[in-house]
Amino acid sequence: MALAARTVGATGLGANFFDLPESVLRSRRNSKWNAYGPDILPAFVAEMDFAVAEPIQDAIRRAVAAGDYGYPQYKGGKAEPRVAEAFVARMERRFGWKTDPSLVQVVADLVQGTFAPLLAFSEPGDGVILQVPAYPPFHEAIATTKRELTPLTMRDAGTRHVFDVTELDDRIGPRTRILILCNPQNPTGRVFDHAELSALARLAIERDLIVVADEIHSDLVYDGRKHIPFATLGPEIAARTVTITSATKSFNIPGLRCGVMHFGTPELRQRFANTIPARLLGGCSGLGIDATVAAWTSCDQWLDAVVAHLPAARDRVLEVLRAELPEVRCHAPEGTYLAWLDFRELHLEVPAFQFFHDHARVALSPGENFQPGCAQFARLNFATSMPILDRILGRMVDAAKKRT
Amino acid sequence: MALAARTVGATGLGANFFDLPESVLRSRRNSKWNAYGPDILPAFVAEMDFAVAEPIQDAIRRAVAAGDYGYPQYKGGKAEPRVAEAFVARMERRFGWKTDPSLVQVVADLVQGTFAPLLAFSEPGDGVILQVPAYPPFHEAIATTKRELTPLTMRDAGTRHVFDVTELDDRIGPRTRILILCNPQNPTGRVFDHAELSALARLAIERDLIVVADEIHSDLVYDGRKHIPFATLGPEIAARTVTITSATKSFNIPGLRCGVMHFGTPELRQRFANTIPARLLGGCSGLGIDATVAAWTSCDQWLDAVVAHLPAARDRVLEVLRAELPEVRCHAPEGTYLAWLDFRELHLEVPAFQFFHDHARVALSPGENFQPGCAQFARLNFATSMPILDRILGRMVDAAKKRT
Repeated sequence: MALAARTVGATGLGANFFDLPESVLRSRRNSKWNAYGPDILPAFVAEMDFAVAEPIQDAIRRAVAAGDYGYPQYKGGKAEPRVAEAFVARMERRFGWKTDPSLVQVVADLVQGTFAPLLAFSEPGDGVILQVPAYPPFHEAIATTKRELTPLTMRDAGTRHVFDVTELDDRIGPRTRILILCNPQNPTGRVFDHAELSALARLAIERDLIVVADEIHSDLVYDGRKHIPFATLGPEIAARTVTITSATKSFNIPGLRCGVMHFGTPELRQRFANTIPARLLGGCSGLGIDATVAAWTSCDQWLDAVVAHLPAARDRVLEVLRAELPEVRCHAPEGTYLAWLDFRELHLEVPAFQFFHDHARVALSPGENFQPGCAQFARLNFATSMPILDRILGRMVDAAKKRT
Repeated sequence: MALAARTVGATGLGANFFDLPESVLRSRRNSKWNAYGPDILPAFVAEMDFAVAEPIQDAIRRAVAAGDYGYPQYKGGKAEPRVAEAFVARMERRFGWKTDPSLVQVVADLVQGTFAPLLAFSEPGDGVILQVPAYPPFHEAIATTKRELTPLTMRDAGTRHVFDVTELDDRIGPRTRILILCNPQNPTGRVFDHAELSALARLAIERDLIVVADEIHSDLVYDGRKHIPFATLGPEIAARTVTITSATKSFNIPGLRCGVMHFGTPELRQRFANTIPARLLGGCSGLGIDATVAAWTSCDQWLDAVVAHLPAARDRVLEVLRAELPEVRCHAPEGTYLAWLDFRELHLEVPAFQFFHDHARVALSPGENFQPGCAQFARLNFATSMPILDRILGRMVDAAKKRT
């Protein structure tokens, strides 16, 4: 709690920023605090328990005050280009990535942004490479569209998870078309370095792959690491890369449904549009547009505070687990607010998710959803206040100790 | 103005409900009041100049107060089924249409809801029947997806526009797959009667057509008329009908992006989903969901007041035109808040849209966008206060008279 209090004190964002009481959180109608009953502490779906940044609130309050729910417009034109312009300006400012708003397609969410390129750039039966464990909707997208999963396993290399490009090279067949890259990686928290990304880039060029680069966690990297947008690795890579991202994860507004697909070249965008017309993807709400523009242009102070708090919360998770439950393996996430926990050494008789649900009244994300056979793994979301995090960890430790 | 004042007095909805000052309207960031400069009075895009219903405002204020922009959830499940349930309950209550929430797919908007069935139920080069003049995005959907337009002309029959099914029957070829039905019809304002709809239904069955029934204006019908949902014409019709609708037109919330596609049978929905996975369509924002549910369950009083006001505004348009510009043909819209004006007898030297834009400083919707060759037609949106409507009409009359 000391760490959280220090962070809050420094931001001027208000004492409640990181410390919303549980009663306030439970009054939200979001997934995190409503999917389970009132005695469960949620640490599953990727939502943060923090107050939304004031510039986002101001943008929405303005619309409410004006009763302004008409077709979104801005300066005589459609409003969607504002999102594209805010994205482009932000990519240059944060990552030195110079690109163009005309390459941006606004979408509702990144699940849509995953289904769409799979349908546009491959056929049923074609192979799609996916780092596993993986965000469950990636599995869903591959299965629903009847593509073939080619797994790229994130292996536990002692202090972090890594993938082996040589092994992947052997698995790529004549019908492998797409690589889904998630960086920072959900759920392992890896922030891939230049060498790792370059190896994938070389393979993508050699094997003529389209890369769908999910970089939704790119704002949330720690310990001085730098996020490298995959499309910046060179023009040959840009020409085959669809970057999908949004403000929804960093700024905690997934319910406003606004994100972007960025195509590395006009040709790639046109190839996509030949199969998936923009209008099939639907319009984005005016409130989602306004909130996203506010997030990407006016909320750096809020984000800085979050990016100061999250590694402290992460370290609390690691400290408690190492001290109290050393059988649980967990490598420090380099980014994201998600920890991938390996409970195999606890030798639980039920899936780890079920054990902690039943005996700790804590809801984790079941490992099996991220990779078949991983029922003794689970993902823990640590984007909450230190008091709630301590209760989550305390309950888990108690339940595990009581058992042994 | 007297009519408007009477209506307002009866509703208890507040004196400003229909009479928002122009300064308030221009403070909105919507298309209607921002696409043109400050000296133009807008009567084009289908937005209403009325204050949004309080239950909708309350729903959004609740989310803002809680900072509640997470993944929308309701009673432990996803929130989208609430929209489906509200739709089904409303269809039964208003139209005696009994259907099932499992047949409903929530979408962002009805342009998406038009592109999607065209892509799912036809191939490039296949024929799509469209009543013309037509809502411009229908033309766009047919052209973008490379389908062939089979026009079904709405002919001026003296007091209203009608279509001829026999003529249509002759035009249907072996590759004609889809009929887009717009009822109430935009822009002619026709509310089709049972005989007209039955004739289309028989043809749809005989020629094995899928019907995309846009019923977005179904709440806005006047003079004791009744809207008949096309899917209620019988099980054989339901089995081939995709109904698309939303609360956005009746309740003036298009920027919140929430609508529904209703499939008449589970088999039709499955056939659709085989080509267009639900996730490709994207998620709907929590605010759009909450607003739509509020609109469909708690805003009847507001809607009743609107449905009392709009025919008064319509009659004002007709009275003024008949008295001052009898050369302009216009049949009383039976529904919608749109009037289709035939300016051919004015013998203007430029398109009618351009003439009134330049000389009356009034923005209508150009007729050419609804049907090629209709540059001497325009659509007028009369969903505004009587004072603004009188200024629009006065400017148009002055400009046309000055010319002659």
